[in-house]
Amino acid sequence: MIHSINPRTGDQRQPVQESSPLDVHAAVERAEAAARGYAQLPLATRAAFLRAAADALEANRVAIVETADFETGLGPARFNSELGRTTGQLRAFADVVEKGSFQGVIHTPADPAATPPCPDLRRLLIPIGPVGVFTPSNFPLAFGVAGGDTASALAAGCTVVVKGHPSHPNSSALTAQAFVAAATQVGAPDDTLTLVQGRAPEVSQALVNAPGIRAIAFTGSERVGRLLYDLAAARAEPVPFYGELGSLNPVFVGAAAASARGADIAKGLVASMTLGSGQFCTKPGVVFVPTGPTGDAVVASMVAAVATLEPAVLLNEGLQTSLNSKIAASRGVSGVSESVATVQVPDAGCFAAPRMFVVDVRTFFASPALREEHFGPVSIVVRCHADEMAVAATNFDGQLTATIHADAGDLEWATKLLPVLVDKAGRIVWNGYPTGVSVVPAMHHGGPYPASTNSLHTSVGTTAIRRFLRPVTFQDVPEALLPSALT
Amino acid sequence: MIHSINPRTGDQRQPVQESSPLDVHAAVERAEAAARGYAQLPLATRAAFLRAAADALEANRVAIVETADFETGLGPARFNSELGRTTGQLRAFADVVEKGSFQGVIHTPADPAATPPCPDLRRLLIPIGPVGVFTPSNFPLAFGVAGGDTASALAAGCTVVVKGHPSHPNSSALTAQAFVAAATQVGAPDDTLTLVQGRAPEVSQALVNAPGIRAIAFTGSERVGRLLYDLAAARAEPVPFYGELGSLNPVFVGAAAASARGADIAKGLVASMTLGSGQFCTKPGVVFVPTGPTGDAVVASMVAAVATLEPAVLLNEGLQTSLNSKIAASRGVSGVSESVATVQVPDAGCFAAPRMFVVDVRTFFASPALREEHFGPVSIVVRCHADEMAVAATNFDGQLTATIHADAGDLEWATKLLPVLVDKAGRIVWNGYPTGVSVVPAMHHGGPYPASTNSLHTSVGTTAIRRFLRPVTFQDVPEALLPSALT
Repeated sequence: MIHSINPRTGDQRQPVQESSPLDVHAAVERAEAAARGYAQLPLATRAAFLRAAADALEANRVAIVETADFETGLGPARFNSELGRTTGQLRAFADVVEKGSFQGVIHTPADPAATPPCPDLRRLLIPIGPVGVFTPSNFPLAFGVAGGDTASALAAGCTVVVKGHPSHPNSSALTAQAFVAAATQVGAPDDTLTLVQGRAPEVSQALVNAPGIRAIAFTGSERVGRLLYDLAAARAEPVPFYGELGSLNPVFVGAAAASARGADIAKGLVASMTLGSGQFCTKPGVVFVPTGPTGDAVVASMVAAVATLEPAVLLNEGLQTSLNSKIAASRGVSGVSESVATVQVPDAGCFAAPRMFVVDVRTFFASPALREEHFGPVSIVVRCHADEMAVAATNFDGQLTATIHADAGDLEWATKLLPVLVDKAGRIVWNGYPTGVSVVPAMHHGGPYPASTNSLHTSVGTTAIRRFLRPVTFQDVPEALLPSALT
Repeated sequence: MIHSINPRTGDQRQPVQESSPLDVHAAVERAEAAARGYAQLPLATRAAFLRAAADALEANRVAIVETADFETGLGPARFNSELGRTTGQLRAFADVVEKGSFQGVIHTPADPAATPPCPDLRRLLIPIGPVGVFTPSNFPLAFGVAGGDTASALAAGCTVVVKGHPSHPNSSALTAQAFVAAATQVGAPDDTLTLVQGRAPEVSQALVNAPGIRAIAFTGSERVGRLLYDLAAARAEPVPFYGELGSLNPVFVGAAAASARGADIAKGLVASMTLGSGQFCTKPGVVFVPTGPTGDAVVASMVAAVATLEPAVLLNEGLQTSLNSKIAASRGVSGVSESVATVQVPDAGCFAAPRMFVVDVRTFFASPALREEHFGPVSIVVRCHADEMAVAATNFDGQLTATIHADAGDLEWATKLLPVLVDKAGRIVWNGYPTGVSVVPAMHHGGPYPASTNSLHTSVGTTAIRRFLRPVTFQDVPEALLPSALT
C-alpha cells in the first residue's frame, strides 16, 4: 500500500493500492491498444478532450486542493494557484492542437526538371506512440498526473501511462479522474490516460522497460533520473528519455547592483529560495555575492531575513532525511559559516529550518558536498570577487537557469558573464528570480545535463509538444490516402 | 596506416596515417576552443563559409571524383553526380543559415496583468557545441566528410570533428581540405572542421567519449552504431546520438499493380536494389509480392533481370566477407529458393553476384537470417497473400522507408496497409523506389529504431539542422546584451 501522509502532522488517510510490474505492463498494453484510436481523433476533438479535462479538474477544485494540501503541507493558496496553472496549460495545449501548426507540415512539390528529379514530398509530424510519464513530489498538480508532461504528450496525440508520485497518492488519483471523465465526454478511448501508483523501483523499471512505451518524460532527482535514463538507453529498442533532473540555478550579483539595492535583492533571494519550502527545481541554490563591504551588506541582509523565517514543512520524510544529510555534509566543510532561522523546529512532522551556508569561491568549487542540490529551504552564498565570477562560472555543470543582478555600472561585468551562463543554462534571468516558470510559447525549461537529459527540448511551455512527435514523409502518395493535414 | 585500396583490382595508393585516441582528444579540444568564435560569426559569414567549401569542392572536382572512384569502384558518373549533391546540400544549408528562421525565435512579451505576472521572454536556438561525425563507407561525398551531417552541424554553428571512413581515406582527406580553404577565405577559425582517420575501435570510442563533444552524428551499421550509441549514453554527461543504422526498406506490390505493370515494377526493383552495387541504406531489401499467377510473373521477371546482371563491385573486403556470410546463412534457411546472376564473378577484387532469395511470408518472419540487412546487391522476395500483407507488416522493426506499388484496384488494400507502414517507417514511397533521397525541406531520412536511434530527427533535408541546436530563453535581458537575432 502507498500511504497518504500529512507531513505537518504525520496523520494518515486512506492508503492507495500499489501497482505491480504486471499491472504496469497491462496498462502499457491498453495504452498501445488505444494509441491509434486516440491519434486519429479529429484535432478539434483532441482539443476538446484537453479542455474537458481542465473543466473536470476545475469542477473538483475543492477536493483536489484540500487533498494536495493534506499530502504536501504546502497550503491551499498554493494549490488554488497551482490548479489554475494546471488547467491553464491544458487549455494552452488545446489551443496549440486546434491551430495545427505543431504538425510541422512541409510540402516540397515535385520538380521533374531537377537533377535527379524530385518527387512530391509532404512531411508531417505524427505522435510517437504511448508515453510513460514520471511525476515528481513537489508539484502534485502542475507537474503531476495532470501536469505539463501529460498535457504535452496528450496534445501530441500520444496515449499516456503516468506514474503517480508515492508522496501524494490520493492527489494523483483525484487528478487522473478528470481524464477518465473527459474521455467519456468527448468519445476518446477509455485508456487514453492510465494511472499507475508505485513506490518500489520495480514499478518504475517496468514502465521504462515496457516494449509499448515509445518515450519517457521524467521530473525528479538526478540520482533516480539517471538510473531510469540508463534503463531507457539500454532497451533493445532505446526510447527518448526527457528527464528534468534539477539544478543549482546560480545567481550572480553585480557590485553596482549590490550597492544600489542590496537589501532588496537579499529580500527577493530569500523569498525565492524558501518559496514552496525551497522545493522548486528553479530555487536559487547558489548565490554569488561580490567580496567587499557592499557584498558583506547583502549577506548580512540575507542572514537577517533567514533568521526571522518560520520552519518550512517538507514534502515527506525521505526528503527530510536527505536534506539533513546534505546539511550535515555542507556544515562539515572547513571554512563554511552557517546561518539558520532562529525559531525552534517542531519535533513532529517533516520540518526544516531555512538556512544559508556562506563560503568563498575556491572552497565552493573544491567541495562536492556544497555543489549538491539541497532540495529544501537552503542556499549556498559564495563570496567571489566580481571580476572572477565569469571564470568561476565556467566550473558549473548544466543548469535550468542562471540569474544576473546588474545595474548600469555592472554592464561591462555582465557582458563578460552572460556568454558563460548561456553556455551552461537553459534560461537567463535578468534582475529577477528564477522561481516561477510561465507556461508560454517562449518559455524554456531545460538545459545542458544534468539540468536535463536532453537539452534540445523543454518540459514547460508549448514547444514541449515537440518531444512526442516524429516526422513521416509521404512521397507521391495520392491525396485520397494522405492524412487530412497534408491535403 | 590506413590503406587506400581499389576494390576492383586490389591496387593500392599512398596510405594515410591513422589518428591515435590522443590525436582525437586534441582535435576535440581544438574544436572546443574554436566553438565560440565560429558560433559568433555573423550568419552571412557562416553561409559564405558553407558556400566557399562547396566552391572549393567543385574546384577540386576532377581529383575528388577520380579518388573516390579509385577507393570505391563506383564509377566517375556516380561521383560527378554525388559531388553535385554534396555541394548542393552545403548551398541549401547556406540558404537556411542566411534566412535565419532555423533559430526558432519566439518572443512572449511581458504581461504584468497575468496571474502570476509573465516576464518578457525571448527564446532562441543556439549551437549545441562541437559535434562528432562518423561517416559511412558507401557515400564518400554526400554522407562523407563534406556530407549532410557535417553540413547541418556547421550550419547550426557547431564546430565539427569528423572521422573519415577507413574504406576511402584519401577521399576523406581531399574533401576535408575544402573546409580548411573556406575557413581561411571567410575568416572562420582554422579548427572549424577537423578530420581524424581511424580503423581501430579505440579511435571511434575516443571521439564519442571526448568530454568536449556535445552531439554525435553517425551513419553506418546497426552493430557499430549500437556500440557507439551505448557509449554515448553511458558518458558522465550523456550526449545525443543521431545514428542512421540501416533498414530493410520493405516494398509491397498490390495485386492490381502486379497484373497491370508487373514487368515494369520488376525492372524498377532490380535496378533499385543494385544501384551503387546495392550499397544504399534505402535499398529495397525485402519485396512482398502477392501469391498467385500475377505475382509469379513479377518474380519471374525479377529472376530474369537479375540473371543478366554484371557482377557488382563492393566497397571493401570487409563488406564482401560480411555479405558472403549473410548469403550463406540465408541460403541455409529451409524453403528458400535462390536466383543469381549467371555471369562468373572475378576471383580478384571485391565483387558480388547480384542475387535474390524467394521465400514464403511465414518462413521470412521466422528466420532471423533473412531479416538481416544484406548490404550489397541482394534482396529477399517474400510471397504473401495480398490480404495478409498489412498484418504481416506489423512484424517489421523500424524502417527508413516503406514502399507501396498500387493501382486503382489496390486502393482498399493500400488503405489497410498504409497506417501500418506509417507506424514503422520514416518515409512512405508510392509507386516509386526508395533509393534516391532528395535534399529538400520536406525530406525525412530516419525512422523508428533501428532505422535510426532518434526517430524525431532526420539526417537528410534541411530540418537536419535542428539536431544541433538547443533553446535558451532570455528573461527580461536588456536589448544591449541580447543576441542580435533577438533584438
